[in-house]
Order: sequence, then structure tokens, then C-alpha cells
Amino acid sequence: MTAINQNTPMPTDPNDGMVNGIHMETLLGTVNAIAQEPELGACKFRASNKWLGGNHNCTTVTGFYGAKQEITHKQQFELHADEPPILAGNDDGANPVEHLLNALAACVTTSMVAHAAVRGIRIEELESELEGDLDLRGFLGLDEKVPKGFTDIRINFKVKADIDDMEQLKRLTAYSPVFNTLTQGANVEIRVERK
Amino acid sequence: MTAINQNTPMPTDPNDGMVNGIHMETLLGTVNAIAQEPELGACKFRASNKWLGGNHNCTTVTGFYGAKQEITHKQQFELHADEPPILAGNDDGANPVEHLLNALAACVTTSMVAHAAVRGIRIEELESELEGDLDLRGFLGLDEKVPKGFTDIRINFKVKADIDDMEQLKRLTAYSPVFNTLTQGANVEIRVERK
Repeated sequence: MTAINQNTPMPTDPNDGMVNGIHMETLLGTVNAIAQEPELGACKFRASNKWLGGNHNCTTVTGFYGAKQEITHKQQFELHADEPPILAGNDDGANPVEHLLNALAACVTTSMVAHAAVRGIRIEELESELEGDLDLRGFLGLDEKVPKGFTDIRINFKVKADIDDMEQLKRLTAYSPVFNTLTQGANVEIRVERK
Repeated sequence: MTAINQNTPMPTDPNDGMVNGIHMETLLGTVNAIAQEPELGACKFRASNKWLGGNHNCTTVTGFYGAKQEITHKQQFELHADEPPILAGNDDGANPVEHLLNALAACVTTSMVAHAAVRGIRIEELESELEGDLDLRGFLGLDEKVPKGFTDIRINFKVKADIDDMEQLKRLTAYSPVFNTLTQGANVEIRVERK
């Protein structure tokens, strides 16, 4: 069995073995380990949420299951969601659909950067603007024919890289797990029990 | 035309007109305005993302379009994403798929609380645990037959409320925009241009 070492030290020289800021030995070590032992790739990602009153709630992320072991993040992440005043909230956090756009932006960006690194494409700068169309009549139950979720989401990247073929970079975003979850759909099972 | 006032003052008595911490006059005012003038429901939510090197990037959320106007949040929200060391990151933020679970948790929670409020159901406590299955072989391009996104996501709610019918509360989560985007899918259009 090829072990995955989650504590691989970073090199002291920041350019030593790094492409796009990614330590290639670590990344390729993970890729090769999973290629040799496929069950290492099976992950369970997790989040805990607590309602704080009104439209305000907080998600805590502490760890996940991957590489056949429980892995704890270096720090605990807390993510607050709320609604703006027009939607009867206090604006104490981005709202849930804005958090969804964040998840998508983060994932297509990471996917492009990592897959470019593996292919030896060096990216210097990368930024994106996202916009998604959502008709509140769906959420509010005012019209059953109106979709309740986002119908269309547009992502516009601007990139400075050492290749000219922007379509090649675009194709790398197709590896993104969040992009695939949103475009292909996932099964979501909900249970509600009395506390 | 029925105007939506995004600056409706909150009542000085915190219990005055509040259900589940939501100011009902504000919420029902929005519902009635959109019912009378459907185009007020058309929203465009937005996010801007900047790559910070490696697997670290940051999304900024400042405002959105809704009720036929540009609306600015009271504060700017910054959301950091990174990967854990095992995935060649520095753990400077939840990773993108954990952010996706956060968006889903926040949205089904808000949907349950708000739709319960409209129906006069009082919720005292509400928390949830989420877990999603993701096989990294998809993202890493090791096996074309392996889905790249989440396949199954489970949400377990625990709730303290003034009704016994937990199935009724569960049904309210079906209004969630993020739940619907994930289960129904959305069109995502990506453009990449040189900076």
C-alpha cells in the first residue's frame, strides 16, 4: 500500500518543486497513491449547522474522511449566513445562494490552477466574476411553474498565464466537483427528528 | 406599483411581530409585493473571486440585483477557500466542496425557518449535520466512469418546535433554492479571457 502523508513538509525554498504555488510532490503523491489504491479516493466531507435565530445561521467545518482515515483541519472554520434587510434579515453574512456562488468560484478556480500545474501551465493571475439568475417567486411558493433554484450561472475568468489557448484553460474547469454537482445534480436525502 | 422598502425599521420590542426571529411584516411585505408585481422577484446574485496562489482563493460578495434595483449589502463579505495538506493546500479556509455543504445547510435551514414562520409554526432550536460522498478519482481524472461531483448528500436535522409532525417541517426544505439547484441542476456558462 502507498501511504498518503498528510504532514508532508513544504520545501524551505518557495520555488522548489512548486508550480502555481502548489507543491507538486505532495499533489502527485496523492494522485499516484489513489491511482494505485482506488479506495483511498473515497471521501466524506462534512458540515454542522446551527440556527441562530431569524435568517441567521452558522456552519462549522472541522474535518473529513479521506485516504481511509479521519482527517482534522488545522483550524475550525465558521461560516455565517444571513439575508439582507429586503429579505427580512440583518445582513450578518452572505446569503445561502451567494455562498453557493462562492463554492462554485472557489472550485473552478482550484480545478483550473491544479490541473494547469500538472500540465506544466504556469498561471500568474486569475480572477473571476460570477452572476446567477434566481426568481424569488419559486422560493416564496408564488408560482409552481417558476424554478426554485438558480437557472443560469455565468462565470467570467480573467487570466494571465504562459499559454495563449484560453479554451484549454476553460476545459480544465470541467474537473471541478462543485461545477459537476451543480450541472449534473446530486441525491440529497433529508431527515428531520425531534430534539 | 407596490414598492419594496429595504430599510423597513425593525420594531423596538423584539417580540413585536416576530416569528422565529423574522419580522413578519417585512417578509410578508416582500411576498405581497412580488405577488402583485412578479418582475420584482427576478434577482441576479453575484460573487467575485481572486486567486491568492496555490489552492487558496478568496470570494468577495458586495451586493445583488433584486426588486428592480441594485442592492448593496451592509458590509462586504470575504470567504476564503483552500485545501488541507493532504490535497496540497495550507488549510487557510474550508475547501470548495465544504463551502458547498455550507451553502446547502444554510439554505435548507433558512427555508424551513421562514416557511414555518409564515405558517405560524414556532421553532425554538434547529441544527443539522451534513455529509456528502465524493470520490477524488473523478476530480483527479483517474477514471472517466467515476462522477466528479458529490453523488449523495445526507442532511440530518434536529429540531425543537411547537408541532409534532416532523414530515411537515421536512417538506418546507423543498423550497430551498440551493437544494433545488443541487438536485435539479443549473446551466453554468464559463468564459475565460486573457487579462
